[in-house]
Amino acid sequence: MSKRVLMKGNEVIAEAAMRAGCRFYFGYPITPQTEIMHYMALMMNKVGGTFVQAESEVAAINMVYGAAAAGGRVLTSSSSPGISLKQEGISYIAGAELPAVVVNIVRAGPGLGGILPAQGDYFQATKGGGHGDYYNVVIAPASIQELYELTVEAFNIADKYRILVMILGDGTLGQMMEPVSYRDNEPMVIPDKPWAVTGRAGRTEHNTITSIYINPDDLEAKNRELQDKYSVIKKTEVRYEGLNLEDAEIVITAYGTCSRICRNVIRQASEEGIRVGMIRPITLWPFPSEIIAEVAKSEKTKAFLDIELNAGQMVEDVRLAVNGCKPVHFYGRMGGNLPSQKEILDQIRSIHKEVSK
Amino acid sequence: MSKRVLMKGNEVIAEAAMRAGCRFYFGYPITPQTEIMHYMALMMNKVGGTFVQAESEVAAINMVYGAAAAGGRVLTSSSSPGISLKQEGISYIAGAELPAVVVNIVRAGPGLGGILPAQGDYFQATKGGGHGDYYNVVIAPASIQELYELTVEAFNIADKYRILVMILGDGTLGQMMEPVSYRDNEPMVIPDKPWAVTGRAGRTEHNTITSIYINPDDLEAKNRELQDKYSVIKKTEVRYEGLNLEDAEIVITAYGTCSRICRNVIRQASEEGIRVGMIRPITLWPFPSEIIAEVAKSEKTKAFLDIELNAGQMVEDVRLAVNGCKPVHFYGRMGGNLPSQKEILDQIRSIHKEVSK
Amino acid sequence: MSKRVLMKGNEVIAEAAMRAGCRFYFGYPITPQTEIMHYMALMMNKVGGTFVQAESEVAAINMVYGAAAAGGRVLTSSSSPGISLKQEGISYIAGAELPAVVVNIVRAGPGLGGILPAQGDYFQATKGGGHGDYYNVVIAPASIQELYELTVEAFNIADKYRILVMILGDGTLGQMMEPVSYRDNEPMVIPDKPWAVTGRAGRTEHNTITSIYINPDDLEAKNRELQDKYSVIKKTEVRYEGLNLEDAEIVITAYGTCSRICRNVIRQASEEGIRVGMIRPITLWPFPSEIIAEVAKSEKTKAFLDIELNAGQMVEDVRLAVNGCKPVHFYGRMGGNLPSQKEILDQIRSIHKEVSK
Amino acid sequence: MSKRVLMKGNEVIAEAAMRAGCRFYFGYPITPQTEIMHYMALMMNKVGGTFVQAESEVAAINMVYGAAAAGGRVLTSSSSPGISLKQEGISYIAGAELPAVVVNIVRAGPGLGGILPAQGDYFQATKGGGHGDYYNVVIAPASIQELYELTVEAFNIADKYRILVMILGDGTLGQMMEPVSYRDNEPMVIPDKPWAVTGRAGRTEHNTITSIYINPDDLEAKNRELQDKYSVIKKTEVRYEGLNLEDAEIVITAYGTCSRICRNVIRQASEEGIRVGMIRPITLWPFPSEIIAEVAKSEKTKAFLDIELNAGQMVEDVRLAVNGCKPVHFYGRMGGNLPSQKEILDQIRSIHKEVSK
Repeated sequence: MSKRVLMKGNEVIAEAAMRAGCRFYFGYPITPQTEIMHYMALMMNKVGGTFVQAESEVAAINMVYGAAAAGGRVLTSSSSPGISLKQEGISYIAGAELPAVVVNIVRAGPGLGGILPAQGDYFQATKGGGHGDYYNVVIAPASIQELYELTVEAFNIADKYRILVMILGDGTLGQMMEPVSYRDNEPMVIPDKPWAVTGRAGRTEHNTITSIYINPDDLEAKNRELQDKYSVIKKTEVRYEGLNLEDAEIVITAYGTCSRICRNVIRQASEEGIRVGMIRPITLWPFPSEIIAEVAKSEKTKAFLDIELNAGQMVEDVRLAVNGCKPVHFYGRMGGNLPSQKEILDQIRSIHKEVSK
Repeated sequence: MSKRVLMKGNEVIAEAAMRAGCRFYFGYPITPQTEIMHYMALMMNKVGGTFVQAESEVAAINMVYGAAAAGGRVLTSSSSPGISLKQEGISYIAGAELPAVVVNIVRAGPGLGGILPAQGDYFQATKGGGHGDYYNVVIAPASIQELYELTVEAFNIADKYRILVMILGDGTLGQMMEPVSYRDNEPMVIPDKPWAVTGRAGRTEHNTITSIYINPDDLEAKNRELQDKYSVIKKTEVRYEGLNLEDAEIVITAYGTCSRICRNVIRQASEEGIRVGMIRPITLWPFPSEIIAEVAKSEKTKAFLDIELNAGQMVEDVRLAVNGCKPVHFYGRMGGNLPSQKEILDQIRSIHKEVSK
Repeated sequence: MSKRVLMKGNEVIAEAAMRAGCRFYFGYPITPQTEIMHYMALMMNKVGGTFVQAESEVAAINMVYGAAAAGGRVLTSSSSPGISLKQEGISYIAGAELPAVVVNIVRAGPGLGGILPAQGDYFQATKGGGHGDYYNVVIAPASIQELYELTVEAFNIADKYRILVMILGDGTLGQMMEPVSYRDNEPMVIPDKPWAVTGRAGRTEHNTITSIYINPDDLEAKNRELQDKYSVIKKTEVRYEGLNLEDAEIVITAYGTCSRICRNVIRQASEEGIRVGMIRPITLWPFPSEIIAEVAKSEKTKAFLDIELNAGQMVEDVRLAVNGCKPVHFYGRMGGNLPSQKEILDQIRSIHKEVSK
Repeated sequence: MSKRVLMKGNEVIAEAAMRAGCRFYFGYPITPQTEIMHYMALMMNKVGGTFVQAESEVAAINMVYGAAAAGGRVLTSSSSPGISLKQEGISYIAGAELPAVVVNIVRAGPGLGGILPAQGDYFQATKGGGHGDYYNVVIAPASIQELYELTVEAFNIADKYRILVMILGDGTLGQMMEPVSYRDNEPMVIPDKPWAVTGRAGRTEHNTITSIYINPDDLEAKNRELQDKYSVIKKTEVRYEGLNLEDAEIVITAYGTCSRICRNVIRQASEEGIRVGMIRPITLWPFPSEIIAEVAKSEKTKAFLDIELNAGQMVEDVRLAVNGCKPVHFYGRMGGNLPSQKEILDQIRSIHKEVSK
């Protein structure tokens, strides 16, 4: 680690991508992620990369498909409605097994909604979104330093598994400034991509990138390959942060901006004699189900409290992991509003009272 | 009931929509749902309705938004990739609380995939899809007669709750022919829509249809309203079919085309002395969690077996309902392939052996 | 003639189209023609017609193609930049020989320019525009009453020759109010369209509407047919208004809004003893070349003065008609500015001085 | 001159553009110009330039606008229908006075037409096309060597005058192979572009590129500036080739592919004792009116014969230049057909007979 600078979250994402060897950016402007695009417009030029403000979000994601198929490290970014427009392209990228990084600086929905922070796109990012059986790796940084580290990591994971990695942020994270330490020489290991469509390049045949399989057995085989890949990723790439898991009675689950508020509450609860821990998923998919299941089985654990900036989405994955072992409570705010520490503390007190009976 | 005719599933959807008073259709062609569009192109003309083949799926869903805002009964239809393109619009329709019906004749994905039947869009339809916290009512007919009944019902539910209703079918259902009995006079009760943007029309102010709320408190209030509406729908609109639930050891969960195969297997299993029942969700959202939870708690029930034409999607909702009470098994086929009766029977035998230990 | 009402030009175009049996309108909003669209949005609904605000101007003109191919009377309207976007579609309509009416309420260009009146699209309308050898009939009304009469006529000519008719107006004409007398019962004679694609409808084969001809001999034959049609139209459909042609020394050529100013100048010039006449082309294509050539050959005629709201476009057609017989002068204003009567009078005086030498 | 290679016309255009310092290409595929795009896709990558296959022709021309505004040398290419789609953008580029090069490998129209050579887009290229009063410089090469020389020249003229230069070719020229001699070191003089939008870059204010002028006096002033620029170009940049002009009785006017056929006919006519010359416009705009007017006034000249691959377009400019001095005949072929030498010779014989009376 060396260079330490104060930067805005959105700019850190862009800078991290550049350092990770990303040389293609395609996008269409939307608040609150426009700084990523702006930074890329300035910087790509200087490194001989390609920046295109496309005609639309649909155009941009298809350019991502093209540049990824040609072997480049590619980024697009948008915010909620723009990400919805990209769902067809995201499914195509999944089907064609292309590595790409997509940033969603989530805003409050549904529809046009507002531009304030939210986590209402959890389902879209981790399960639904486009059509067909596929998963994106979904990463949820919670600090500016993580935005740097995990953006670099996103490109590495994308290339390692030929998979789309989505970084889920929100306007708070994108607009906040914190110091970030960049490594002097980013140890970039961009792998060979012998599958890329780069002309014949000494091979006897052209490579082909496609997601069409007319024969159902071929398409089923491709789907089985995808599922096998997802199984490997579930085993290898789960990332989470655990706090006080050894002696917590109440375990908070929260990610991103929301987890920053919860972190402070833990201290306050402890001052009142309530032992609160936290599991902060860093990868939302693959989801840290195992650690949650393990903690759920512990006798010390009395209950879970899931906090989100939505009406309750990740809580389903928590419940699936807990699988009926312990009660799972939920508290959420919406519309761009954040829960206050007091609101969360009140939830904890009420749960504590109940489980102490 | 009276007129009984032999018709193709896709045409029945279109005919049912017309009978339900649908006078606006906007779409873009894609296999295997093109017959719906074709039928509408022919028929709308005759009843003074509006049919538009739009420039794209994105254009079509926004036309749906417009016509629904103006108070019309509106339909669009597509197949998986086309539905992905509509996700932004679908989220806007949810945010603006507009009634509309969207048909997805699902094909095998991800990406371009193939055109054969699949159920890989369950997550997209029931949870993810567009951005933000919203739900569509999702209906999964399993016969031609149901295509008629439930399409009519879809328009009624859409208007009753100002919500988007999605009909999930697949190519098998869309292309198959079965007899259908139409009611002589469809008892259409198209409700008044005093909220529609129809000019001032005697009111002192213009109505406004929008999903933008700049103030986070306003947007949160709107989201709470939506969640309240969803709670009512969950209480009132769940539909499912139960088979042999009173004495089944193994309970199959399956919907649509897939449930038709399972139905036959139940008989075969019974001949081998294995008591198999089935819960067939007709509404995928709201999901029949209560009946599943209830059956799960019964002592007779030893295990669940979820069968889908995908890698395992609805099974998550089954697991959430069962909540750890009983084991939940899954068997799926992909790529356009259907499970044979024998494959399912083998699954049942193997589960039966295990639970009989 | 009977009903006499005071109306805005843009609304008169829309009303006239409705009276002419136009039942399809496709467009995209742009100042200063939006009242046409607005009127159509209100009215189409009431007569069971179809109004679509399309995704773009490109979408709209292709919908015009479709509805015209199906035999409808179809209108689209836009202003200069929007008309440029429609050029591909206009060429396709010409190639497929479809009847359609396109209104261009011209604004000052090039590019985004301004929204004030101009005549800078004369070349685009009469010659260039789209690719390939084709002509549109181009009509330039100069009063509100003419907007009515000529819009009706536009639909008749379109159907008679299976040709696109463009109505060129400008913001002055579109926004001004004058009394207009509507005929009680518009004597609509919408011809049979046995070529339309309306399903087989008793014919042994489907009709086909296309502009593709792979074999060059076929395409040349189609082009010869088009040229033959254009020859007939040039002989039959030329419309112009002549003023004082019998004894004018100086003959003004001007059309549309601009001709209204010139008309007043003639009187003023006459008071100074200068005999000025005017040829006002009503059809810009076919152009009234014959009357101009004839007047040019008259001994009384000393010179022509062409006045336009552009840098000199129609003046080329005047020069081609005059063919060197007499001097042809030009005076134009641009950017949304109109020439004053004094400016024109000064031009006349100066020409008069020269020709009187 | 040095490197002499055998290359296809379309590739020569692309190679010439690269040598002229073009580092931005935006396009959308269409026959018969796709080799230009293909070559650019391969080469841009190698020189750190930018190649984008855009979502549509409309997207591509607006990307041209953007890159040109930023000071780059930019190329797009298409064929007739695709060029029609670009007309709005072309007018915007004219209004914003941006340098750019657009290649139109013309195919036979109108509409979809065919893919064989034609010259039916002369009017569109030289007069009409987009809206408003503007001109493009239009260059019509007639050999592979000229494709090289004039493409380089196109970029120089574009930058010199901040104007769009269109290169008009056709499929014959684009697909034919001839030897081409490249200069060893292209003497590139890419001028400074202090007007470009490159960030503030030491200036006190940002540059602005726009074509909007709300105030009519401002817009008229901008239009006068444009017209003044066009006057300078008309004086300075006219290019043509003259053959046997000193003693020709009959003067052919023809450009591009078509002029190659005419060239051979001159020899044949001379063997029959008919003295035929040719004026081959190399710039179609500015048009070589002066030399035509001069030749027309010569006593030796008896008549003009204009030959085009269309229904008669350039012939209007010939007539305007001749201005009634001498008869101007026209002979054209359409649909992708070329006139044979015999056909042209027959025209010459018939004219010769008439003028010899």
